[in-house]
Amino acid sequence: MDDDSCQTPLTTTTHNFTPGPSGQSFLSVQHPLVYLYLCLSQMFRNLLTVSRPSFINLVSRMSAQACRDNNMIFRQLFDRESCTYTYLLADNTTKEAVLIDPVIELAERDAKLVQELGLNLKYVMNTHMHADHITGTGLLKKLVPGCKSLIAKMSGAKADIHVEHGDKVTFGEHHLEVRGTPGHTSGCITYVSHSHKMAFTGDALLVRGCGRTDFQEGSPDTLYHSVHSQILSLPSEFILYPAHDYKGQTATTVAEEKQFNPRLTKNKEEFNDIMNNLGLAYPKKIDVSLPANKVCGLHDLPEDLAAKFN
Amino acid sequence: MDDDSCQTPLTTTTHNFTPGPSGQSFLSVQHPLVYLYLCLSQMFRNLLTVSRPSFINLVSRMSAQACRDNNMIFRQLFDRESCTYTYLLADNTTKEAVLIDPVIELAERDAKLVQELGLNLKYVMNTHMHADHITGTGLLKKLVPGCKSLIAKMSGAKADIHVEHGDKVTFGEHHLEVRGTPGHTSGCITYVSHSHKMAFTGDALLVRGCGRTDFQEGSPDTLYHSVHSQILSLPSEFILYPAHDYKGQTATTVAEEKQFNPRLTKNKEEFNDIMNNLGLAYPKKIDVSLPANKVCGLHDLPEDLAAKFN
Repeated sequence: MDDDSCQTPLTTTTHNFTPGPSGQSFLSVQHPLVYLYLCLSQMFRNLLTVSRPSFINLVSRMSAQACRDNNMIFRQLFDRESCTYTYLLADNTTKEAVLIDPVIELAERDAKLVQELGLNLKYVMNTHMHADHITGTGLLKKLVPGCKSLIAKMSGAKADIHVEHGDKVTFGEHHLEVRGTPGHTSGCITYVSHSHKMAFTGDALLVRGCGRTDFQEGSPDTLYHSVHSQILSLPSEFILYPAHDYKGQTATTVAEEKQFNPRLTKNKEEFNDIMNNLGLAYPKKIDVSLPANKVCGLHDLPEDLAAKFN
Repeated sequence: MDDDSCQTPLTTTTHNFTPGPSGQSFLSVQHPLVYLYLCLSQMFRNLLTVSRPSFINLVSRMSAQACRDNNMIFRQLFDRESCTYTYLLADNTTKEAVLIDPVIELAERDAKLVQELGLNLKYVMNTHMHADHITGTGLLKKLVPGCKSLIAKMSGAKADIHVEHGDKVTFGEHHLEVRGTPGHTSGCITYVSHSHKMAFTGDALLVRGCGRTDFQEGSPDTLYHSVHSQILSLPSEFILYPAHDYKGQTATTVAEEKQFNPRLTKNKEEFNDIMNNLGLAYPKKIDVSLPANKVCGLHDLPEDLAAKFN
């Protein structure tokens, strides 16, 4: 099968075998050939009764939630300091891999895993220009020669490749669709794997939450529209992987967030009101993170990191 | 299909239809029945050629790594304080659920998720009697009335249900096999889901590591034997979920640990030498954790937790 068979919805229509008219036209009911035909067709139907429904049942069960076949390597990684999730995805046949939202302090961990799994790291990509940590992109480009940095054109950050809404990021036989989901920042994007029914939402949508909208051209109006039109419009069983979680939650689903997200289940006016009154402190790392993240994380590093990584 | 079709290895043998001898004995090569039989059997083979290989291909890909069908809900949860992983598994049809290794401070988070997902929490179970945190078992029994506590008989801890090596823990149509994996403590067990090709290894095996063996009847000899005979003997593609990780790694595989575990790839003598010379500090929470964990976590609580939870 190709990778999309995880996604393709199969109906439970029974495919009964029907011999063509040429097989029946010369037979009368009394003819002994009819008897043989009926015997064989019954055996045939019996076999279909046994094998087809189990096949259909298998696929329809699998299709309703993300499945991990052996042609997709997937690993979620965590930074306890900034509560950032980094994601490694790879094609198990070609070994081409992508890494989403790495953190500079843990880039060596990520590079080691890439090397141990025998992967060819194609892209180191970010969902947006982070304000709470310095991206591991630049360091990974040093540690894993050949990989390219990737970020949204709208982010304004330097990278080897700039993507826009509607682009596809391909690794092996897999791809991630780029969806523009601005609002936390104007350059936020979500990466969607339709075949594996999962999406990497960055800070646009968090588990039972969302990213703040009070800096970096943040806009509650824009975020509300982005999340509803680009993320919560995905099928309900899609698993959503956020860029952060502060309560030890690793993932959610479209269905859960549509029902339980305390902000995004509200109407737009209530949402705006919530977001405009969060009263959050100024991000403690923003003044070092943003300048560094504008250039893949390897410029204007704070002294301790510069001594180690530059 | 039943849930085991993820696990059952399928060969690529072609299952050609072969009618029994009674279908051929009265036919001569020249008989017109032979012609009809050959036509029908050829159509039959053609159908097999189209449908069977795609089915086989689908299952063999799925079978090589853990897959998440829509009849299994799976969620990994994390405690940043003790770096403990808690796992929620549920049958999506019957809604029966189990929770592995909950932490008392996050029991309310877990109970809320159980409630939001509409689950019927059947068992709150532990891989062993923890020394680094207080189990959430007792508090969850209060928060989610009806669930039962479960732990290994060998742990010596109080629980509603005691299990032993070879037992099965069933929830809905799923089950976890209990494997005795002593060595970190004498009551350590690993829960194995053969159908979903994953195992919850507690502290017996960690990502590129293993639990310490210098207290609670720990034994390097015993741990070495446990891990090799009960965990690393599983098929290479099985995903292993540990009870802890301190570097943000969420999972590993049998194949990876057999190749890269810095301790368990050594021979027994070298392993013993490593484990006997770790020079680790006395676990800071052991004196409050063990007495509480002997009785599901709700007895002899430290003052701050007792005020909140008792």
